[in-house]
Amino acid sequence: MSFQLIHTDPDSNARRGRLTTRHGNIETPVFMPVGTQGTVKGVHPDELRTLRAQIILGNTYHLFLRPGLDVIGHFGGLHSFMKWDGPILTDSGGFQVFSLAKLRKITEEGVWFNNHIDGSPCFLSPESAMQIQADFGSDIAMVLDECPPYPCDLEYASSSLDRTLRWADRCRTWVAKQSRQPPLAFGIVQGATYPELRETSARELVRMDFDGYAIGGVSVGEPETEMMQAIESSEPFLPAEKPRYAMGLGTPPQIVEMVARGIDMFDCVLPTRLARNGTAFTETGTMNLKNNPYRLDPRPIEEGCACDTCQTFTRGYIRHLIKAEEILGLRLITIHNLHFYLNLMQRIRDAIAAGTFGQFREKFVAGYVKYEGDRIQETGDGR
Amino acid sequence: MSFQLIHTDPDSNARRGRLTTRHGNIETPVFMPVGTQGTVKGVHPDELRTLRAQIILGNTYHLFLRPGLDVIGHFGGLHSFMKWDGPILTDSGGFQVFSLAKLRKITEEGVWFNNHIDGSPCFLSPESAMQIQADFGSDIAMVLDECPPYPCDLEYASSSLDRTLRWADRCRTWVAKQSRQPPLAFGIVQGATYPELRETSARELVRMDFDGYAIGGVSVGEPETEMMQAIESSEPFLPAEKPRYAMGLGTPPQIVEMVARGIDMFDCVLPTRLARNGTAFTETGTMNLKNNPYRLDPRPIEEGCACDTCQTFTRGYIRHLIKAEEILGLRLITIHNLHFYLNLMQRIRDAIAAGTFGQFREKFVAGYVKYEGDRIQETGDGR
Repeated sequence: MSFQLIHTDPDSNARRGRLTTRHGNIETPVFMPVGTQGTVKGVHPDELRTLRAQIILGNTYHLFLRPGLDVIGHFGGLHSFMKWDGPILTDSGGFQVFSLAKLRKITEEGVWFNNHIDGSPCFLSPESAMQIQADFGSDIAMVLDECPPYPCDLEYASSSLDRTLRWADRCRTWVAKQSRQPPLAFGIVQGATYPELRETSARELVRMDFDGYAIGGVSVGEPETEMMQAIESSEPFLPAEKPRYAMGLGTPPQIVEMVARGIDMFDCVLPTRLARNGTAFTETGTMNLKNNPYRLDPRPIEEGCACDTCQTFTRGYIRHLIKAEEILGLRLITIHNLHFYLNLMQRIRDAIAAGTFGQFREKFVAGYVKYEGDRIQETGDGR
Repeated sequence: MSFQLIHTDPDSNARRGRLTTRHGNIETPVFMPVGTQGTVKGVHPDELRTLRAQIILGNTYHLFLRPGLDVIGHFGGLHSFMKWDGPILTDSGGFQVFSLAKLRKITEEGVWFNNHIDGSPCFLSPESAMQIQADFGSDIAMVLDECPPYPCDLEYASSSLDRTLRWADRCRTWVAKQSRQPPLAFGIVQGATYPELRETSARELVRMDFDGYAIGGVSVGEPETEMMQAIESSEPFLPAEKPRYAMGLGTPPQIVEMVARGIDMFDCVLPTRLARNGTAFTETGTMNLKNNPYRLDPRPIEEGCACDTCQTFTRGYIRHLIKAEEILGLRLITIHNLHFYLNLMQRIRDAIAAGTFGQFREKFVAGYVKYEGDRIQETGDGR
């Protein structure tokens, strides 16, 4: 068994678990920093270790296009290429094909598209998506899925889901055929905003018996209530003894709320993307360090924060760096923001283990109110 | 005495010295990384310490405009603002006023200009330039000078030099009047490409008795022979017991050659600027890591290099980062390039002390031949 359930919360669906991979154990609930192009933007792998990141995400679509499988293969896989020896989860590329590339045709066999870098024609099938992820040396591979747009009518959502389930089955078959140990394989629950489709999707995937289950087609522009609804209409049909992963989510209170709904794994570009815009996460909400009041502010981004940035630098100095477009500024905020997310997960794990998650959840969500940041939507470009 | 001469080379004018400042001793010959806007671009102060940078440069013009003297003063000076506790040399802003700003009028009193950020009118006098640098908490302040363009006719160069000398005298007077300990003050030898003007400039500045002497108006687009000529026609008139600083220079072999001509201090944007373009310095010349042959190259930038980048990452991975426009790429090359420059100075100091500088110079300059980088010219924007 690759997943072990350690504690369950008496008042919610929150769980404290441990996922075992070839590159080490992952304590869940976990946040996975996004390393789209073989680097968590602006961050040195030594810093990821200092931040105690347990697992990072790589994007199959981007890495397949650039530097290409031949380069990553030549260097012995993604871990060795980027000098990260912890676990890596790769997405299947499906989401990017539908959000970034110029789509040409979806067929039963797979998806034809022109990539966004040089426009050249490409093809991805369920089997090739799995093979590429295995060749990268990924620890956790995601099945190829179609991610329908929001909003999406029932008819299209239903036929798209049917094909996505057939593709998932082919991915599962691919895994079963491997002689060398394949990555852990996660199915992806789709079904847009339709609870009955979400249920069908979850039940069918569970029948195929994956190592874990993701909830996809969220964070695509839908209101937060529909996002939570998608989680709530999928989770009851997923087995307790397998990890659940909400793809591309979310804000800090959303993560707390999704943990309460039984989710174990998260990835999101927000901490790195908002950093590049000068926005920092704090216990009470986001803070845009470009704002004038921080000009003479001698405090760290967040008082009491243990990250290197807060231990060393003032808001006033970071504001200057951002205003002057100095890259040290986004680097310092990126470190703080990743620390904030990773530390939030540590606090969530501690609270579940201590039986105090309910209080933690209530206090955190009520306290997180300030909003100085940008609007938040996943675009698939990993930025 | 703030400067101590430790060794002199028997075969050239090279010197091994030690400059004492309020923030520590500087072993010369020394290279000063450029921190134009209160940060060495992309580099954390901890990394500067790991690289054993002894002193960094700050730009008065940029910092005066943004974040402004009130902000830097509020934070207790530039050292405290940027969390760098080693020595800082600041330029006077003269060079930037003439290269970046929209010049309005040069008068005997000072220079009127519109700054390049918001176009608002500004004024800088010899006294205000010194006062600003003192308020920054600079360890070494440069006098305000006019930096004439290249080429420049004798008549203009001569009248410009006369005014620059009168301005230098006012800076010296300003220093003498201070009750609190002022920064060390360096005069700047001007005189364009005219040896007789360079001699006059040097002799007059020495008569005023500064703590050190810079050679300015070099690296402004002139051929290398004229650059060396400017050094050679200034140096003989500078006292042995004071440090000499070649402003804005140069490539690695130029630095070795200028050390041989008696120069003790250097600053240059090349290691940081070329890094951002994907170009690295090596023992045999520059290397543009964007180039295709590095795609599958498993070697570090330079074999045997002790920098963190070369100890960890391959050329192939760094090439990928640069091609994918990932900022970790420029960060890794910046670290390597600064290490290269700082290590070159260490080797120069060791060679002078060991009496082997002549051999070192010959071997290094002959071996530095490959050129894959960009053309090199100082523009004053610190980039």
